[in-house]
Amino acid sequence: MPAFFAPSMARLIEELSKLPGIGPKSAQRLALHLVKGAEEDVRSLAEALMDAKTTVQHCSICSNLTDSDPCEICGDGSRREDLVCVVEDPSDVVAMERTRDYDGLYHVLHGLISPMDGVGPDELRVKNLLDRLREDEVQEVILATDPTVEGEATAMYLARLLRPLGVKVTRIARGLPEGGDLDYADEATLSRALRGRYSVDSG
Amino acid sequence: MPAFFAPSMARLIEELSKLPGIGPKSAQRLALHLVKGAEEDVRSLAEALMDAKTTVQHCSICSNLTDSDPCEICGDGSRREDLVCVVEDPSDVVAMERTRDYDGLYHVLHGLISPMDGVGPDELRVKNLLDRLREDEVQEVILATDPTVEGEATAMYLARLLRPLGVKVTRIARGLPEGGDLDYADEATLSRALRGRYSVDSG
Repeated sequence: MPAFFAPSMARLIEELSKLPGIGPKSAQRLALHLVKGAEEDVRSLAEALMDAKTTVQHCSICSNLTDSDPCEICGDGSRREDLVCVVEDPSDVVAMERTRDYDGLYHVLHGLISPMDGVGPDELRVKNLLDRLREDEVQEVILATDPTVEGEATAMYLARLLRPLGVKVTRIARGLPEGGDLDYADEATLSRALRGRYSVDSG
Repeated sequence: MPAFFAPSMARLIEELSKLPGIGPKSAQRLALHLVKGAEEDVRSLAEALMDAKTTVQHCSICSNLTDSDPCEICGDGSRREDLVCVVEDPSDVVAMERTRDYDGLYHVLHGLISPMDGVGPDELRVKNLLDRLREDEVQEVILATDPTVEGEATAMYLARLLRPLGVKVTRIARGLPEGGDLDYADEATLSRALRGRYSVDSG
């Protein structure tokens, strides 16, 4: 596809089209944009790439991506250390933090169990979660994996695994999203919302 | 948006989201993908970026992007030197070359006249096209800008500008696309196809 381009352009297009969600046409457009732009912009991107790749590591406690170990969240003495929220990947930590409603710690699995993609529990950061629960004074583990088939399977697997440790295991609630419309909700969501109903007195 | 990420990740996400067509969510997904992947892949992308930016230049003859001056096409002695095809940008050269049906030279404008975006003839590579036509033995200039408002305006502007030079000026044909369906063609395209009808004897 990138024939007829100058070799250095062709190589850049090829490298860009290896990225997820970027096809040959987008890669071509990005490459032209980059080559047209200022050299310092391109240098800045190239440096950010190498810098992130060489600096970022996994936090030895929660496995989240961090520049320094332990990560900012694990090292933050003001957070509750008896509460651990288990999520699929670092973007989920960002999503949780954005709520400003959670002050416990995290554990990042870096994936979900998915037999179809050949991902079993061993490919996930499960072992160090167990070690952590054995050592630390964690009282509750919130399973906050996605409400999808893989997320649910992972949550169920972890729940079974954690139960013998005597720690309280919870799962984030499913139901209608805030501002949602009952009329437009799919049956599965509405069923869940119905089964998960709570008493208004206690709510 | 990229708060709560490690600083080096946040910077990479910020740099990536400056690219056209890449929003904060895609940038986050790309950054996570890159950080998860092999270091040599990231290095390879970073190098391709800097390499393309520092190596690629404009051909002094046709203004196409090239690693060496003159570009491969202008330096190819086997191509017709009396025919110049004027296009908007380097991807159009690639599109033309892909037809394998054109063996003349090119001239890349690097844009189209667009008063709305503040792009006038002076922002385009028009001056060196004129110089080239005065010096070289060009017999025909094919205006192959897009069949859009800007492409048409640019073609009309160039046609007026080139006429006094005594060179034959042509415009690529408009009509129904190959394999197209008359029934589904828009009125403007069908009108064009009708007006551009040609005698079957001579066709």
